[in-house]
Amino acid sequence: MSNEDSSVNPAPRQSPPRPSHVSIADVERIVRESLPLAALLGLRVETLEYGRCLTRMPFRRDLIRPGGTVAGPALMGLADFVMYLVVLSQIGPVELAVTTNLNINFLRKPGEADVIAEGRCLKLGKRLAVLEVTLYSEGEDEPVAHVTGTYSIPPPEQRK
Amino acid sequence: MSNEDSSVNPAPRQSPPRPSHVSIADVERIVRESLPLAALLGLRVETLEYGRCLTRMPFRRDLIRPGGTVAGPALMGLADFVMYLVVLSQIGPVELAVTTNLNINFLRKPGEADVIAEGRCLKLGKRLAVLEVTLYSEGEDEPVAHVTGTYSIPPPEQRK
Amino acid sequence: MSNEDSSVNPAPRQSPPRPSHVSIADVERIVRESLPLAALLGLRVETLEYGRCLTRMPFRRDLIRPGGTVAGPALMGLADFVMYLVVLSQIGPVELAVTTNLNINFLRKPGEADVIAEGRCLKLGKRLAVLEVTLYSEGEDEPVAHVTGTYSIPPPEQRK
Amino acid sequence: MSNEDSSVNPAPRQSPPRPSHVSIADVERIVRESLPLAALLGLRVETLEYGRCLTRMPFRRDLIRPGGTVAGPALMGLADFVMYLVVLSQIGPVELAVTTNLNINFLRKPGEADVIAEGRCLKLGKRLAVLEVTLYSEGEDEPVAHVTGTYSIPPPEQRK
Repeated sequence: MSNEDSSVNPAPRQSPPRPSHVSIADVERIVRESLPLAALLGLRVETLEYGRCLTRMPFRRDLIRPGGTVAGPALMGLADFVMYLVVLSQIGPVELAVTTNLNINFLRKPGEADVIAEGRCLKLGKRLAVLEVTLYSEGEDEPVAHVTGTYSIPPPEQRK
Repeated sequence: MSNEDSSVNPAPRQSPPRPSHVSIADVERIVRESLPLAALLGLRVETLEYGRCLTRMPFRRDLIRPGGTVAGPALMGLADFVMYLVVLSQIGPVELAVTTNLNINFLRKPGEADVIAEGRCLKLGKRLAVLEVTLYSEGEDEPVAHVTGTYSIPPPEQRK
Repeated sequence: MSNEDSSVNPAPRQSPPRPSHVSIADVERIVRESLPLAALLGLRVETLEYGRCLTRMPFRRDLIRPGGTVAGPALMGLADFVMYLVVLSQIGPVELAVTTNLNINFLRKPGEADVIAEGRCLKLGKRLAVLEVTLYSEGEDEPVAHVTGTYSIPPPEQRK
Repeated sequence: MSNEDSSVNPAPRQSPPRPSHVSIADVERIVRESLPLAALLGLRVETLEYGRCLTRMPFRRDLIRPGGTVAGPALMGLADFVMYLVVLSQIGPVELAVTTNLNINFLRKPGEADVIAEGRCLKLGKRLAVLEVTLYSEGEDEPVAHVTGTYSIPPPEQRK
């Protein structure tokens, strides 16, 4: 071991934003036609660029759980939606991309406020994409939950 | 390595059922008062005993996702509910038990059928419980999803 | 909700054992040639059949951690090895199958005893396999750890 | 949904570094006395401050797996060690802090190079800490693996 100065800088370089391969209008259509749960939760995409997505879930009294906090499944639904959009932002409107794994750590009790989810791609492969989503109560610095997950990308011949 | 006969039998012994520390009537009250999402999903507890729970989520057209299958967040909501009941079955109606981690693997596309979730306790400690839930489409042998998760159990003085 | 009798029986049917697509001798060769960590841990395959594997990790003083218990990474190495063998038991000696995700819950402090890992397949797809491993201290009924994980299966043209 | 400008900025504020509650000399002593696996892997702490840790695992031929890449369990051992140090950096030399959950996504094949692991705290509670570790092959921008995990912190009266 050593505490000498290290020249290692593993911080991921911040690349300039690139445009998403789906538009927010595309997403609105997909939600309307085939994601009733996202419509039910009132999810609103705030920004969408290649490999990154920011989505808001408005606070609603009917999504609470004992203790007055936002229900875990609502947070999971929000995170899964954001992961889906991050994938589509990179591969286009391939609706049959499916979650194969989702892991969530609940960190703090969310306040009675909108939840903001910020998703990004950790790895985009030919068959799998790995995503990370951090969830915040609006106005707070510390996250309420952290999610990682994997999407399976259908082979080109099975995409519609 | 060796292929000689092993006397090891790690299969968990099937213990006789013990009664749950909460009744199904207790659960119905908790759902009515404080779990609107469970009510929304129409979850129905089929059996509840100490450390084990079987719950049904009726099939509904409005919980589908692209491809016609049951939405992942609905499966996660079902699994989280079952984990919660397994915990309450062991510690009584401590509503402030909270999920700290949930990990789900989606295994197969669920059919257009009710989903049955079978939960059991892997470990009950003083501060943490670890649970496992396996989800099936009714009438199928192979699971559609597998979940493990952790609940944090409040210390006695913070229980209501 | 309802406590009326349910005819649902989601317990997975116990199928009769089928032979593994790799032999224990194959595994011993793979360990010798390309899995030095498994050799280092002294892992010994006890039984290997299609979709199931039982492996023993002998207790060693040099794999402990503070508190005198078996180190977590040794348990993870054991679980990963067992998942690998379960995959090979089903697809043959495809050495380039790789772990994409592993999730472990540590349940109890292992005793000063051999650890027995019992692995099984939850799902075998064309591209992904999902596995479950339960780890026991020899002679104990309750598991010390529970693992789920995913292996990526290379397409036929990339298998050696 | 909306693409109007959002004033939300969920990016965690970068706080100025605070000193760790354990020194690198403390860590070296703990490794020598009670973490033989860390010694075996040759782990070297590069930087350690409150809630953050950078550790290097030197490349070694005997930690490879089929395909010539660094073995998964070595990456898991490295990540677990870094999580442990992040916890100790915040609560002091409480050796009995234990991992309760670890989830790893393997993202890319590591090169034949040292692995650098960068850990940080996502949440420090009284009973649980949640940690994140990102692993890089030295000289590469894209991570080879991503880990989240939970440590259980013993109550004050059980700390030594």
